[in-house]
This record gives sequence, structure tokens and C-alpha cells, in this order.
Amino acid sequence: MTYLDHAATTPMLPVAVARYSEALGRVGNPSSLHTAGRRARKDVEEARESIAGAVGALPTEVVLATGGTEADNLAVKGIYWARREADPRHTGVVVSAVEHHAVLDAAEWLAEHEGATLHVLGVDETGRVHPSALRELLAAHADEIAVVSVMWANNEVGSVNDVRALADVAHEFDVPLHTDAVQAVGSLPVDFATSGADALSLTGHKLGGPVGVGALLLRRDASCMPLLHGGGQERDVRSGTLDVAGTLSLAAAVHAAVDDVPRRTVELAGLRDDLVARLVAEVPDATLNGVPLDAAPVAGGPARLPGNAHLSFPGCEGDSLLMLLDAHEIECSTGSACTAGVARPSHVLLAMGVEEAAARGSLRFSLGHSSTAADVDAAVAAIGPVVERARGALARS
Amino acid sequence: MTYLDHAATTPMLPVAVARYSEALGRVGNPSSLHTAGRRARKDVEEARESIAGAVGALPTEVVLATGGTEADNLAVKGIYWARREADPRHTGVVVSAVEHHAVLDAAEWLAEHEGATLHVLGVDETGRVHPSALRELLAAHADEIAVVSVMWANNEVGSVNDVRALADVAHEFDVPLHTDAVQAVGSLPVDFATSGADALSLTGHKLGGPVGVGALLLRRDASCMPLLHGGGQERDVRSGTLDVAGTLSLAAAVHAAVDDVPRRTVELAGLRDDLVARLVAEVPDATLNGVPLDAAPVAGGPARLPGNAHLSFPGCEGDSLLMLLDAHEIECSTGSACTAGVARPSHVLLAMGVEEAAARGSLRFSLGHSSTAADVDAAVAAIGPVVERARGALARS
Repeated sequence: MTYLDHAATTPMLPVAVARYSEALGRVGNPSSLHTAGRRARKDVEEARESIAGAVGALPTEVVLATGGTEADNLAVKGIYWARREADPRHTGVVVSAVEHHAVLDAAEWLAEHEGATLHVLGVDETGRVHPSALRELLAAHADEIAVVSVMWANNEVGSVNDVRALADVAHEFDVPLHTDAVQAVGSLPVDFATSGADALSLTGHKLGGPVGVGALLLRRDASCMPLLHGGGQERDVRSGTLDVAGTLSLAAAVHAAVDDVPRRTVELAGLRDDLVARLVAEVPDATLNGVPLDAAPVAGGPARLPGNAHLSFPGCEGDSLLMLLDAHEIECSTGSACTAGVARPSHVLLAMGVEEAAARGSLRFSLGHSSTAADVDAAVAAIGPVVERARGALARS
Repeated sequence: MTYLDHAATTPMLPVAVARYSEALGRVGNPSSLHTAGRRARKDVEEARESIAGAVGALPTEVVLATGGTEADNLAVKGIYWARREADPRHTGVVVSAVEHHAVLDAAEWLAEHEGATLHVLGVDETGRVHPSALRELLAAHADEIAVVSVMWANNEVGSVNDVRALADVAHEFDVPLHTDAVQAVGSLPVDFATSGADALSLTGHKLGGPVGVGALLLRRDASCMPLLHGGGQERDVRSGTLDVAGTLSLAAAVHAAVDDVPRRTVELAGLRDDLVARLVAEVPDATLNGVPLDAAPVAGGPARLPGNAHLSFPGCEGDSLLMLLDAHEIECSTGSACTAGVARPSHVLLAMGVEEAAARGSLRFSLGHSSTAADVDAAVAAIGPVVERARGALARS
């Protein structure tokens, strides 16, 4: 099989598998005071330091969590609750229109059930949020806003935001900014301190670590109410028995992935550029969605995730393309795996102004650490007949 | 080392390690539509059926989550929110005084921040909740109660509640009942259907599975609002990428542990009875807390967790005992690992009416699947000198 769905989940790196497997045989709850517990605690704290070092955070800023969904929910809801408690006027939540559902649905729930007012920031036709749009919104509503959440890089079309510029705007108005960097860490240069963000979500299984382990980076001065109460682990912001094996494996994966970013931004992007050029050569009316491949850098890094190729194939249904490619042993997706099978066009593409028909006929190929030129060749070889067949199916329906 | 802290976390069963390790090398997000995704989905659904079968639930009642803390928070908060939304009078939350902090702190947060009224059910001197106490409370407040949460078996002193009788009382008043069965599954006969509970929490690492994987069993007719929003996985009650390896490993552990319950209730209880008798022979003024070892069965099972031995040693500080035993290579705890290091006596013991001084001088030895007679011998050999030294230290202070 040719796996081109790394943005949904990417294979674990051998170092992360090894670290996990060797830790699975040990016992010890890091909250226990005896020798086994203290050894487990030491392992977790060393892993925390390693994660912090790799992403430009302080160890005390790393709140271990179970993944991107939990980290996003914790940031959006927890900061909202804490800021509203500090000042009852703080009931506004600002999110971009292209956020992952973990942010978008959390914000909508706050609006429906917790008295929040939702402000949705529009994006340009490439899927990016303009700092000027945020400034305009905050100038009108600053006293009411509890939290701003804008993703670092979009999971569907790969567009990269200038988080530093957005955080600077938020801070002009004394509003904290959270960024979902689930797709960014390990693919782009990410430094929490210099980003200016007050909170940042990352997860293991998008960067070669295990599923079910991630972190919210949270500045010491950011107030955040817990989502999960209990034993008071993780600065009392997140309770639950710490997963020693998962944390060690996550740390190994973060380190390896971050070290590999310089190579990925060149080699992966090269493979991706080749894939896009050759897909369009095979299907001349196919169009690339998102940021152009030759766009100017953003904050010192590429303006588009190096592994992301998102295209629309006019006259096709995305799900048909996906299943036909799968029959050719090419695995990709129509967008976010989390909403796969949902019969409505992507909210990301609609927010970018892509027309509904074109949005429906789109595919995301996402390359990752194990991708090769042979994967590109296989996708290119399959696309022509697949698009032809999908067009025939749609024309007949 | 002699590990007698299985209630904090127990070593993974070899079958669970094997299942985990073999799954770590595969890729595939169960929400993806391609072959790898569908295979991952099939693995998860088979594991879900296996878990359901082992605990008397339907597969559709198994909401996969990241462990006991998340499952408890989801049940208490989610059912509260859903019931309050259905009827704004439903603002009462009933919990027993001896719940784990994952339930207790969740309920307290609802009272402090979400308009709930907290009702705390007292326990008897053995740590058990009487159905009559619940009936009395509900008779006075039934129209206001959103949810009742009473644990199946207490994590500190091991006392087992009659969940079926408690659920029957709750249902007399049309109130749903959640039970934290984190310590019960794999140690006691647990059958979700016959228990009558509307929701039940279980977690992997207390029964020989991995940390970071668990489930909330939730009846189809129980309404529950999500705590984690996003992709809408798990009946829209719990979002987040499904952890295939963790779920497969959890299923293997649940199955093995549940199959082993008949043996454990005899052999583990035998080891535990021997441990208690010999500890008291060495330290004649030591007293067992919780349910007497010869108490009548509860709902067809033992009235006390078979691996639990919780004793008070007059004239000692529990932390001193713990550290001195650790120096003798015996690992145990003073109570819940989640509150280890906290300098206040256990809320469980205080609720049972144990005096503060006695509560401070208590230890929990918890045996598990890998415990042996040699472990008992080691603890018995160490306890005399350790208690003597701890008493000397307290007398001098």
C-alpha cells in the first residue's frame, strides 16, 4: 500500500516504539512515593524536559494530556472559564473559521451552553488568518474577549499562520492566544517562547509518537481551569494517572521529529512539489487549494506544511476518488479523518471561498517521515484512470 | 522489591503487552475510510465487543476514553449538564463522601462554577453507603437531582457497595446512577446490565492493561453531554482519535482479568487474609480499617476487594511507615496515590469516623495478579522493626 495520509496519523518512529515497548514492562505510578513511583516520576520529568527543550518551552509549561482533542478542549474551555471567572465581562471566544473541530465544536458548545459569544475570524482564499482581521475584531470587542484560538497550520490545506503576529495583536488587547499546533510540531520550526502564544496544543500520533499522548504548552501566567478534575496532577490543570510509557515515547518522537524538520522542509516539500506538478500534468484541470507552493516564507518557515498536497478535481466526488484510489492501493483522504464519511463539504474549503462543487471533489495527499519517491510515482500513475472513472460515475448519477 | 501497591497501578499482563507491542507497528486512523483506516476500525470494534462481553455491556454502551479520571469526569459533568438542560430544576449532584477525587472534585467544581448543589452521602464505619441513606436523600430532593455517583469499591479501604440496590433506589426516583468501578473490574464480579447502573467507569492500568486507556459504559438511554468536543467519535459523547493499540491491549487485559476473578477472589483473598493476620500478630495494636474479613457477601461477591489490606498503626505517621518500608524494599502506600504527599488525613477514613491520629498512621497494602506468598512474608518480616522505628520518630518529634 502507498500511505499518503500522514496528516490523519503517521507511523510511529522506531525510536518511539522502542521507548514505549521497553517502558511497558515496568510498573510504578509517578504519584506514588515509593522507589518504583519515584523512578516513574523521574522518567516523566526527564521526558517533560526533553519535550520542553525541543519546542522552546519551559518544563513547567508542559501540561501532559491525552492528545490534541483534549489539549484543544482544555485550552479553549479552561481559559474561557478562568477568564470569565476573573472578569464576568469576558464571555467572548474568537476562533478562525478553519479550526479543527476540536476547537470549533468546543467554542460552539461554550456559546450554546456556557454563555459565551462566538466570534469567527474569516480567512483569505489561501486559508490564512490576517492579523489585521484579528485587530479589527479585538478593537471592537477587546473588553469582552476571554480567549483567541487560531491554528498554527491547517490540517486540511496545510496553510501556515503567522502565530507571532497574531499573538502580538492579541496581547495589544491583553487577550491570551491559544494555537492548535498539532500539524505543525515536527513539520515546521515551532518555538513556543518566540511564538508569543499563551497556550499551544501538540499530539504524539501526528509526529511519529503514540496515539493518546500529547500536551498543552501553557505559560505559567496563563490562567486555565481544569477540564478533568481529580488527583491534581499536572499543576492542578489536568488530573489523571500519568502515562509513563506514553510520555517517554512522546518525548522520543518529539525530539526525533523536531531534529528532522530541516530535512523535512526540504526533502518532503520536494517530494510534495513533484507530486503536485505531476498530478496536475495528468489531470490538467485539477487545482491546488491553499497557499501556492512558491509563496513567501511565514515566520522563517514554509507557508505551507511541507507534506501537504490538497487538490480539487472538477466533476468528481471526493469520496469516489478516495475509494477508487484505495482500490489502487493508494491511501489518502478527502480532508480531516475526524469528519470522514460526513456528507458535507469541508468547512475549511467553504471558508476559503471554494465553491461547493469543487470542495466536494477534493483530495488531501499528506506525505510524512516514511514517504518516498515511489509513493509519488504510485499516486501519479493511478490518478488519471481514477479521475476518469469518478467523472463517469458522477455524470451518470 | 516487593510490590504491594497494585491499587495504584498494577503491572501489565503479558498478553496486554504483547497485544500493544504488535499493534504499535501498524498505522491507520479508525476514522479514515481507506484500507488501513477500515482495518483499524475493525480492530477497535472487535476490541469493543470483547470488552463489552467481559463486563456484561452491549458494544454500543462502551464509550472509549483515556482512563478512570476522564470517565468519571465525563459521567458526573456530562450527565449533570444533559439532565439540567432537559430540566433546569435538575441541579443536584449526589456523591458519597468516600469517592475518588476524580468524582468528588468534579462534583465540587460543578457546585462552585456550574450552579450545582452538592449532596454528600455519608458512609458507615466500614466505608459503605447504605441504600436507605440514598432513599432518604432522594425522597427529600428527587426533583432536583441530576445524577448520583457512588463507587463500586473504594480505592483506599476496599469496601464494596451494593450497586444494584443503590441503582434500584435511584431509579425509584427516576435519577440516573454512575458508579466508579475502576477498582472493581477484574477484582470482583462486575456485570453492567445486572448492576442497574446507568454509567460505569473502568480503566486499564488497574487491571493489567495500559495507562491512558479506559471506558465509560453508558446506557443507550442515558443522556450525557461531551466533555471533549471534536471529531464526534464515540457516539458524539467523546471525541479524539481512537487509540487502536491501547484499545486492543485494554480488551486483552479486561478479558484476562475478568476470567481470573474467580481465582483472585479465593487465592488473592487468602494471601491478603494471611497478611492481615500476621501483621496484627507482629503489631498487636494494629487495626484493620474497612469491612471485616469475614463479612457477608455483597451482591454475590466479596464485601471487600480481595487484594486490599488497610491498617492503622497507632503512634505512627503513615508517611514514615511508607518510607521505612520502602527502605526495606516493600512498596505500599498510605492511601490513594493521587493524593500521595498531601499532608492531610484521608477523606475516606475521616468519613468512616476514624480519628485523625489513627487516620494519619495508616497504610494500604494492595495485592494483585502477580502477588505471591513471598511478598506477604517480606512485609510481615519488615513491619515490626519499621513500626518500632516510626513510633520512636513520632515520640521524639
